[in-house]
Formats: sequence, C-alpha cells, structure tokens
Amino acid sequence: MTTVPLRFVKGHGARNDFVLLLDPDGRTALTAERAARLAERTAGLGADGVIRVVRTAAAGVDAPAAAPEWFMDYRNADGSIAEMCGNGTRVFAACLDREGLVHGDAFSIWTRAGERRIEILERPAHDSRWQIRTGMGRSTVPGTRRTVRVAGRDLEALDVDMGNPHAVAMLPEDLRLEDLDLTVAPPLDPPAPHGANVELVVPRGERHVAMRVHERGSGETLACGTGACAVAVAAALHAGDGSRAPWRVDLPGGMLTVGWTAEGEVTLAGPAELVAEGALLV
Amino acid sequence: MTTVPLRFVKGHGARNDFVLLLDPDGRTALTAERAARLAERTAGLGADGVIRVVRTAAAGVDAPAAAPEWFMDYRNADGSIAEMCGNGTRVFAACLDREGLVHGDAFSIWTRAGERRIEILERPAHDSRWQIRTGMGRSTVPGTRRTVRVAGRDLEALDVDMGNPHAVAMLPEDLRLEDLDLTVAPPLDPPAPHGANVELVVPRGERHVAMRVHERGSGETLACGTGACAVAVAAALHAGDGSRAPWRVDLPGGMLTVGWTAEGEVTLAGPAELVAEGALLV
Repeated sequence: MTTVPLRFVKGHGARNDFVLLLDPDGRTALTAERAARLAERTAGLGADGVIRVVRTAAAGVDAPAAAPEWFMDYRNADGSIAEMCGNGTRVFAACLDREGLVHGDAFSIWTRAGERRIEILERPAHDSRWQIRTGMGRSTVPGTRRTVRVAGRDLEALDVDMGNPHAVAMLPEDLRLEDLDLTVAPPLDPPAPHGANVELVVPRGERHVAMRVHERGSGETLACGTGACAVAVAAALHAGDGSRAPWRVDLPGGMLTVGWTAEGEVTLAGPAELVAEGALLV
Repeated sequence: MTTVPLRFVKGHGARNDFVLLLDPDGRTALTAERAARLAERTAGLGADGVIRVVRTAAAGVDAPAAAPEWFMDYRNADGSIAEMCGNGTRVFAACLDREGLVHGDAFSIWTRAGERRIEILERPAHDSRWQIRTGMGRSTVPGTRRTVRVAGRDLEALDVDMGNPHAVAMLPEDLRLEDLDLTVAPPLDPPAPHGANVELVVPRGERHVAMRVHERGSGETLACGTGACAVAVAAALHAGDGSRAPWRVDLPGGMLTVGWTAEGEVTLAGPAELVAEGALLV
C-alpha cells in the first residue's frame, strides 16, 4: 500500500476500456503484476488495459531529448507490454486534456512505438465525451496472397501492416457479418509468420464499411484501432478509391473514422469517454 | 450529468463485486437504467451489482419507524431488483464503516428482505480488507426428494430454503468438483416450481467443504452467499453434525464461514475488500 493513494481515471474508447494511473513524476512503477491486478474485472477496478500517465523524462524509458512531455505507459490486462493501442491514445489524450497537463487542441505524446500526433476535435459540453484524432503511422500493403477460412468458405485476404499485422477479407454478399462465429481465429492459408489480426468487412455505403475483428492473442474484441485503419486501407484499395477522403468504419463497440494526412499518414478519429475518477485503496 | 458529482466506492466480497453510490440523503434515484449503465464492464465502471448507500428514511421504501438507519438499495447488473445479496451486505457494511456512517462493531442494516445484523470481525490494518459476519435469517429444509443430473449421473439433492430456493447435492467420490461443466443449469427431477440455485459439494476435512454453484438466472458464479449457507446446512445434516459449530465453505471466489446464532439464525462470515473510491463523471 502506498502512503499517498494513487489517483486514477477510468474511461473507454469505442468500448475498449482503460484504467489510467496519474503518476506525473514517476513515483510508482507499473509492474506487470500491479497492472494485471488492477485490470481484473471483479477483484480489481477492471479494464482491457492499464495506462500510467507519466512524464517521459521520469518514465525510465528510452526517448530522444526532444520527445513529447507525456509518455503512455501501456500494459494489457494480463500485465504484458504492448507498444501501442489506438483506442488507448484517445483516452490517454482526453485524460491529459481534462487534467490540464497539455494545452491547445494539437499535441504529441510519446509511446513505445514512438511519437503520436493528437488532435482534439470536440470537447465535452454536457457530458464527458471527447472526439479525438490520432496519427497512426503509415500502412504497408506487402501484396501477399492469402486466404482466410470463414463459415466454411475460403475468402481472399489482403495483408495490411499498421506496425502490427492484419489480414482483411471482404465478405461475399450471401454472408452476414452478424452471423459469423469468431470465437476461434479464422485460419489463414498460408499462415501469417507471426500470426495476424483478422478483419471481416461488409460495405454499408459510400466510403462506409462495417467490420468485426479477431485480435491475435485476445480473441474477438469490440474495437481494434489498428484493425479499423487496416480495414479502411483495404476497403479503399478494393473500391479503387484513391481520393484519400475519410472512411467511416462501424465496429461492434462504436464508430471510428479513418483518414490520411497530406503526408500519407493514416489517422484514426473516434470517441473517448471518461467515466470516473478517484483514488486507489489497494 | 449531475451538477455535484456522485461519490462511489468499488469493492468485492469473495470476488462478487459492487459499485456503491454514496447518496446518504436520497438525492439521486438509482433507476434500473442507471444501475445497468454503471454495472457495464467496459462502458461503465463494471460490477455484478450496484448498491445505493442511503438513509432508510430518505430511500422512499416501506420500512417500520424503528428500522435501521442505512438501507442497502441493491440492484443486479441488469438493473433488476434483488431482495438481498449476502456478499453485498459485507461490502455495504465495510463501506458504512469506512465512511464513519456507523459506530462500533455490531449494527443492523435495512434491506428489501428486512433487517440484517452485521458484525465487524476484523478491520483493515495495512490493506483495505475487512472480515464481516452477516445474519442471513433461518434456513428451512422442506424434505422434498429430488435428483440433479450431473456428468450423466442422477445425484440425490436436498432442498434448502434460505429465503431463496437451493438444491444441494454431494458429489460421489469418483467425480471431481473441478471437472464439472456448469455452463447450463444441472436439471432437477422433479423440477423446482420456481427454479433453484444448484450447489455441488465435496468434503475437504472436518466441518470443511468445497462447492460450486449454478445460480438461477445468472449461470455459474464465483461466490453465492445464500448458496454457501445452504451448503453448510446440507453438509451438517449429511454429516449428522448437530453441534452448530461453524463450517468452512470454499468457493471459487474465496473462503466463507457459515455459523449459527444461539437462536438458530444462519450467519455468513467472509472478506470484504474496498478497491477504489472516487466520483462519477457520467
């Protein structure tokens, strides 16, 4: 037990939820064991991931001298480290904004995957909901030919790399997205060398798709930020859309918007809601 | 959004977890919709149940003039009302104790099932963990003959009523508690008229058993307070133990102790841990 209780904020982005620990000066180590205990749904506070809000200079991580002031010290619910989490960046940025730790509508944060640009698109008026856009880096489409087996069918899948590997398949018209069973990972042929997140996509309108995702190592999730980016990249290619106008991507957890900067970086915009704040008693 | 943020405490008893809303003067109604939203695991705070901490006189419930000061306004995670929750009474009492709303080690609370006696057995020293005993009312054993089908076998089940109906079966020696599949309710023959919680029990030592439970309407849970009481009643009968000495009951979520008062009321003792406190932002 710490003598001064550690402050926290709990929030979610498209139903991907996080406990954020406010540790600006790096007085607390976020160990794997502590993160896992906090993320536990019944005996802890409960979350998909735990993020320590800490100054980069105080975080004990490798960073250039000119790195952004705030480091997103992210761990998965099992305590393991993940380099980045797209939905997590929005909730992290909303927390920085609410706490007055950043100024203005555009700033950068430091993550284990490097610098990420943040833009606050909307601030809460009568609720606790932000809209935030995050620079997600560039996509790569290596052009590998792969199939994914879904509902007894072999569908063509496009590899899209967003820093992590994705295989994106468009569903044929006679398969309904809602009917798929994604409790186990749809098998890829040939298999991806390090595994891949698998996204299944249906068109919903002009530059508008709906998707479901099976995340490598996690199973089906309600929202995957890099997955939404990979889907928009694949859908734009599939539709022959080189306009770089934004795509709307509907996920089970909510609606995200994928766009591109003038320099060709993929951006992901969506909601971040802060639900509660307080102090840990354990 | 309320103008003054509502304070909350989150805690659990044997991994049965609750969000407690501190509303001493009854300024906030705990509607079904609000309870369900708070109990949601990703978009809310997340809990098995939501309890409003409110003065009985301000709660808008039927209660005698001499009813205890504090009312446990309990709702399930889906927003529906339950009359009582054994693990919930301990977390509720720990919260009253921590907030200084009660004095001394023995007091009563008011619930929709009437008055419940509370005894604080241990207060936290260096952690946030209480040990608390709750009066659970009297048990009734109507003597109905019933079997329960488990792992392809028909086992004898004893009906025990703890205000809610239970059917308790001792496992034969060649079945392991850990191996049972309780994803669906084990069928009773004849069926219980209003359904029943089904408990499966193995001996572990002198006045010591382990159990798993399938709760009517909820599926398998990590801990069921009235279930632990029913199991101790059945196990004492089964062992021919009329001593009324306490029984230890191990559940997947933790260890509970069932005893009897001189007047024959069943008591349930176990842990209550308060994990966090804070203010709602939604």
